Amino acid sequence: MLMGKVVGHIVSTRKNEKLVGSKILEVRLIENAEETDKFLIALDSVGAGIGERVLLTTGSGARLALDNQSTPTDAVIVGIVD
Amino acid sequence: MLMGKVVGHIVSTRKNEKLVGSKILEVRLIENAEETDKFLIALDSVGAGIGERVLLTTGSGARLALDNQSTPTDAVIVGIVD
Amino acid sequence: MLMGKVVGHIVSTRKNEKLVGSKILEVRLIENAEETDKFLIALDSVGAGIGERVLLTTGSGARLALDNQSTPTDAVIVGIVD
Amino acid sequence: MLMGKVVGHIVSTRKNEKLVGSKILEVRLIENAEETDKFLIALDSVGAGIGERVLLTTGSGARLALDNQSTPTDAVIVGIVD
Amino acid sequence: MLMGKVVGHIVSTRKNEKLVGSKILEVRLIENAEETDKFLIALDSVGAGIGERVLLTTGSGARLALDNQSTPTDAVIVGIVD
Repeated sequence: MLMGKVVGHIVSTRKNEKLVGSKILEVRLIENAEETDKFLIALDSVGAGIGERVLLTTGSGARLALDNQSTPTDAVIVGIVD
Repeated sequence: MLMGKVVGHIVSTRKNEKLVGSKILEVRLIENAEETDKFLIALDSVGAGIGERVLLTTGSGARLALDNQSTPTDAVIVGIVD
Repeated sequence: MLMGKVVGHIVSTRKNEKLVGSKILEVRLIENAEETDKFLIALDSVGAGIGERVLLTTGSGARLALDNQSTPTDAVIVGIVD
Repeated sequence: MLMGKVVGHIVSTRKNEKLVGSKILEVRLIENAEETDKFLIALDSVGAGIGERVLLTTGSGARLALDNQSTPTDAVIVGIVD
Repeated sequence: MLMGKVVGHIVSTRKNEKLVGSKILEVRLIENAEETDKFLIALDSVGAGIGERVLLTTGSGARLALDNQSTPTDAVIVGIVD
């Protein structure tokens, strides 16, 4: 899994129907407690907000965090870091 | 997921039969609102056009965005960023 | 698989319910016997502790090391290097 | 998916029995129409030859392009770029 | 798939029970016939030894090369390069 900071909401009016209703967030990755120049776009399973430090699961494991596991995504926020 | 800008169509006359009829697009990845030097080739599920900013899902999750989920791809455009 | 050194515990009170009870560790990757600047967050299947050198499996294979294979993770510690 | 140029054949007499009979090619990746310093080894589903520009699918999607989908590979050439 | 050179054996007394009996090898990746600074840890399906040049399959496809496909790994040596 990866650590990151939520930096924005992504608005997409024209999107795949299986993504309708999903909150889409931009996350800046953190390594060794420092913000990097790498970014990922992720769905949310824990109610994360802008500025919070989060854990991300990528790949097929990400979908296991969602109610609808056929959502076409590859990254989901699975925790807020205390 | 990743963000990118559609920069071209890929034409492939000789291709795997399971890709026949698929629109194949070249996407330049965007990170932190800037275009990078990284590129991906992706199929399209939302009617994306050249110059549009898009969201890409990679890996097995990409195929969940397609009508035919046995299409041999690893990247699909799943949204147009407003 | 990857080699790394466990460098910390991640505490996440608000997390996906399928992660409740999982030990979440931060691992600094090692290549060619040297510590790198790359980090991963992983679950544990072998009782690893801070400072130990470990083997990590990533992706869908990681979950095969867990009792509950529907845990939404993409990295699990599968061995301690002697 | 990725774009690349086929640069060689890989000969492997001692290989996993599930790979016997597979053509194994080395591909130099191309980004933004320029050859990079990144290489992948891939199987072939379209009759690609040395010097041709090709499309590669990676991961589990690669195997969907093969007749035998239990072939232990993670990259398959799925098209020749015109 | 990736090419590499086997550079060592990894000894892990405390490991996931599903890895007991597996030979675990460290592989230095090779690109364009030159050894890189990237390393992977892999299981073996072909009897590879130290110093041999090998082909590696990563991800879910790696496990297709093993007798026990529920082995928690993400990289397996699938061929020796002649």
